[in-house]
Amino acid sequence: MLRTHTCGELRINDVNKEIILCGWVQRVRDKGSVIWVDLRDRYGITQLIFEETTTADEVIKTANTLGREYVVKATGTVVERISKNDKISTGDIEIKVSKLEILNKSKTPPFTIEDDTDGGDDLRMKYRYLDLRRGPVRENMLLRHRMMQETRAYLDGKNFTEVETPVLIKSTPEGARDFVVPSRMNQGEFYALPQSPQTFKQLLMVSGFDRYFQIVKCFRDEDLRADRQPEFTQIDCEMSFVEREDILTTFEGLIRHLFKSVKGTEIGEIDRMTYDDAMKYYGSDKPDTRFDMKFVELNDLAQGKGFNVFDSAELVVGICAKGCSEYTRKQLDALTDYVKRPQIGAKGLVYVKCNTDGSFKSSVDKFYGPDDLQEWTDKMGAQPGDLLLVLSGEAAHTRKALNELRLHMGSELGLRNKNDYKVLWVLDFPLLEWDEETQRYHAMHHPFTSPVPEDRDKLETDPGAVKANAYDMVINGVEVGGGSIRIHDRELQQRMFKQLGFSEEEAKAQFGFLMDAFEYGAPPHGGIAYGFDRLCSLFGGSDSIRDFIAFPKNNAGRDVMIDSPSPINEEQLKELGIGLR
Amino acid sequence: MLRTHTCGELRINDVNKEIILCGWVQRVRDKGSVIWVDLRDRYGITQLIFEETTTADEVIKTANTLGREYVVKATGTVVERISKNDKISTGDIEIKVSKLEILNKSKTPPFTIEDDTDGGDDLRMKYRYLDLRRGPVRENMLLRHRMMQETRAYLDGKNFTEVETPVLIKSTPEGARDFVVPSRMNQGEFYALPQSPQTFKQLLMVSGFDRYFQIVKCFRDEDLRADRQPEFTQIDCEMSFVEREDILTTFEGLIRHLFKSVKGTEIGEIDRMTYDDAMKYYGSDKPDTRFDMKFVELNDLAQGKGFNVFDSAELVVGICAKGCSEYTRKQLDALTDYVKRPQIGAKGLVYVKCNTDGSFKSSVDKFYGPDDLQEWTDKMGAQPGDLLLVLSGEAAHTRKALNELRLHMGSELGLRNKNDYKVLWVLDFPLLEWDEETQRYHAMHHPFTSPVPEDRDKLETDPGAVKANAYDMVINGVEVGGGSIRIHDRELQQRMFKQLGFSEEEAKAQFGFLMDAFEYGAPPHGGIAYGFDRLCSLFGGSDSIRDFIAFPKNNAGRDVMIDSPSPINEEQLKELGIGLR
Repeated sequence: MLRTHTCGELRINDVNKEIILCGWVQRVRDKGSVIWVDLRDRYGITQLIFEETTTADEVIKTANTLGREYVVKATGTVVERISKNDKISTGDIEIKVSKLEILNKSKTPPFTIEDDTDGGDDLRMKYRYLDLRRGPVRENMLLRHRMMQETRAYLDGKNFTEVETPVLIKSTPEGARDFVVPSRMNQGEFYALPQSPQTFKQLLMVSGFDRYFQIVKCFRDEDLRADRQPEFTQIDCEMSFVEREDILTTFEGLIRHLFKSVKGTEIGEIDRMTYDDAMKYYGSDKPDTRFDMKFVELNDLAQGKGFNVFDSAELVVGICAKGCSEYTRKQLDALTDYVKRPQIGAKGLVYVKCNTDGSFKSSVDKFYGPDDLQEWTDKMGAQPGDLLLVLSGEAAHTRKALNELRLHMGSELGLRNKNDYKVLWVLDFPLLEWDEETQRYHAMHHPFTSPVPEDRDKLETDPGAVKANAYDMVINGVEVGGGSIRIHDRELQQRMFKQLGFSEEEAKAQFGFLMDAFEYGAPPHGGIAYGFDRLCSLFGGSDSIRDFIAFPKNNAGRDVMIDSPSPINEEQLKELGIGLR
Repeated sequence: MLRTHTCGELRINDVNKEIILCGWVQRVRDKGSVIWVDLRDRYGITQLIFEETTTADEVIKTANTLGREYVVKATGTVVERISKNDKISTGDIEIKVSKLEILNKSKTPPFTIEDDTDGGDDLRMKYRYLDLRRGPVRENMLLRHRMMQETRAYLDGKNFTEVETPVLIKSTPEGARDFVVPSRMNQGEFYALPQSPQTFKQLLMVSGFDRYFQIVKCFRDEDLRADRQPEFTQIDCEMSFVEREDILTTFEGLIRHLFKSVKGTEIGEIDRMTYDDAMKYYGSDKPDTRFDMKFVELNDLAQGKGFNVFDSAELVVGICAKGCSEYTRKQLDALTDYVKRPQIGAKGLVYVKCNTDGSFKSSVDKFYGPDDLQEWTDKMGAQPGDLLLVLSGEAAHTRKALNELRLHMGSELGLRNKNDYKVLWVLDFPLLEWDEETQRYHAMHHPFTSPVPEDRDKLETDPGAVKANAYDMVINGVEVGGGSIRIHDRELQQRMFKQLGFSEEEAKAQFGFLMDAFEYGAPPHGGIAYGFDRLCSLFGGSDSIRDFIAFPKNNAGRDVMIDSPSPINEEQLKELGIGLR
């Protein structure tokens, strides 16, 4: 046994014990007659002390050779510190070292292994194994570990069976974003890596597994935005003999369990909102409901008063920013610039200051008198001291822009505290989306998503109005999971395929084995999948999923630490029956 | 909520309750005035009853249309059965059905969904989703689920951190068996799928994670024997600041925990055996120690008596089969045939019957008198009534053949009960193997495996005699896991590479980022990996890992259910920058 304790373990009541510690040299302070060394491992930091008067020369000599990140084994006695350090759990004691062994040397690391490092992103990615030594990065990984254990504990406790689905699966015609794997034994043929285990989890329901889960790697070969990774992890679940309410209840339970067990937080009421309301009141299907600031539509009050911008707009809609009536010209200009940014693309911003003295000051005083503005104020529930911000134009575009402005104001006003968590279900998404290009409907979720029971009759008569029996879980404006009740009834499935423009044969060709399986007694079923990387980053209070992945890839899909992907040799290509173009 | 209870839940004290069950029709028995239906789900079987006199006509009418594997929802009252069925947990009750809804029909399945099915292997693989409905297959999956949960619970309790390592990694020059994945964003370059997370887990030790584990998919593109799969699952672990004993203790703990929690079995003493002893006494590095029947070498007694077969042999070695002296000529001929089979390849078999009257009858009576045979008997610890079986020839070959014969006799004598479990560590494997073809040593495990401390000095002077600090866990003659203490000392690593014929530069080229990482303070570390599919099959008492994988591939690496691998279209190939040869 190389050590008797870890570096996070010793306390005042261990004084006088003979112990052995192993770890990395975090810091050496040499005051001539005394040397202190901070020894670090995963569990904490313990101070070692070497004193000229009492420590053997040989040990001092070794201590003098120590550099940052050296790996050492120190044998000694626990003694009480004179000047205690209440910032660390071992701060009451230090180790008087009697024997010091260097287990391994270290070159000087390319950046400091401190909570606040001097290393830039690129350097830290290249030396990820050193970055992972830093406290905050290690904490992220430990959080992820705990999230995994607690997720499984909850689901296991609810009779979910963990089943590993295959990684080498079949490429599908719509699999434009599939990673493929050439087969050596079956030259000219390819496996595909799963974008999700969707079909397999539905097969498991056909198999009678009743409740399935898996924390599983999925793969998507697509242009990577900052927060996407070519390989990512899902909590994937499916249940049989359920209706929507069963799923919502079960997974409200999961998220409550995770908040409680991992963060010690009781989350409040979990609200539910229809997709239509989410779009109408927040301009987004994933509203941040940590703060209110709902959209209020002003068409009826604002149009027909001679202001052409509003009169010609499909939608005039505003938000009320509480207590912002004192915003300066500069601040208001900055907000106008913000909404005019190309990513947001509003033409302009109308403001109305509700002054504390009851008067108004607006950017449209020319067109609207105090009585008009009082009407707006009443409708928007504003008080003296508030600021109204109003956008107008084409409805969908304007809602989208106002969503951005709302979030921006929420941040400015400190209403988006990352330690507050507000969980929301968004329900009743449209089942079908009209595609102008192909001039037909396509499934918003996937073709096995069922319509809500009350809309089934409208599938042929008013397809665009049919709601899907689908649900997204949104936390603080981030979509963390989503799913649906699936179609299990063959007749309904046929009608769905018809709306999507498939014949029965085409459907079979495309969804082959799943369609076959559905002919042998498929139970009613539904499920959900959570983006696990995203969920972890949310729990960790970060916007970046990359911080919560041990060995992430960069925006170009490269792992710069191992330098992958990389060319392979001609011999390997030949064996696989492929060549480069 | 579609159901109030599952089909495995209702008992005699639920009588008179109004309940709803959902499930699959296992069996319909129609006696004219009464119809019984066995309704099945994952949790059990419950009997439904429909009586002409008391059940509504409409319900009876629906019941009459039911076929095997139909999915139904039955509402009714729990009643006590007249003739109880003590084979099932719900056998005291049945459901008097008041409402019956067919949730889904089923075509007649291609084989019966019974514990003993009439379906052949190929059919069951093609319709794996139906095969998974069968009790024994479902039990295998539930066993696997439990094994996973308990493995993680144990390791989490021992401070191991679960870290997901990447699936898209870098192909290595020795990666002849790597599956590769062409990159769309980096045309002409490839990722590889990991054969194991070996380098990543060592990097995590360099990162200070101290204790890592993962239940992880690994991939190997090689010719598949019956018990190999192109994708397989490992329990992968690594620990820092440990010596061999720490690892053995920790993982003895894991295996004891698994036997206890999953099978309710206390396993006895876990023996340890050197590789040399395993080869000498069992002719195998994974001996089945459920029974004794150790090899006894007879060269000193059997040679020099004029029997040329023995005199010319490098090794004369036998086993004692207890109580088999009455074996008939036919039985002995069968054993001779057995060892002469090409896979085993012995030239012949010598037997000595130790008759119960104290006399001997052997196949070599011409050369050996009773006194000679008494000497053999004494040395082999045989008693009257036993049978000695002796092979001879080139030593390694003969040991291998006698290993097969020993296992065969163990089976014949019922000494290999699959419900008995005997766990063994095999230790001190050779570090290096001499390769005649390339005329150099190669690493038996991998180049980062350390020699045992006492053999370090022999690395240059007697490389073939150096033992590795490696260990295999063997259960009932099956290698379920293996690992080693790794080299963490650069000087020793250089010496190791030298023995393997690498220059420092070549080593860096081949093991690049790991070698780099080792320059920044690598701690002493070691680890182990268990073949999880194999471990599950052993716990399940089966020889086939395929029975314990939800969606396995066949010997040609094909998934016949989804028909994969399969061709992909020209457009996809083009986008990937590759073409077929």
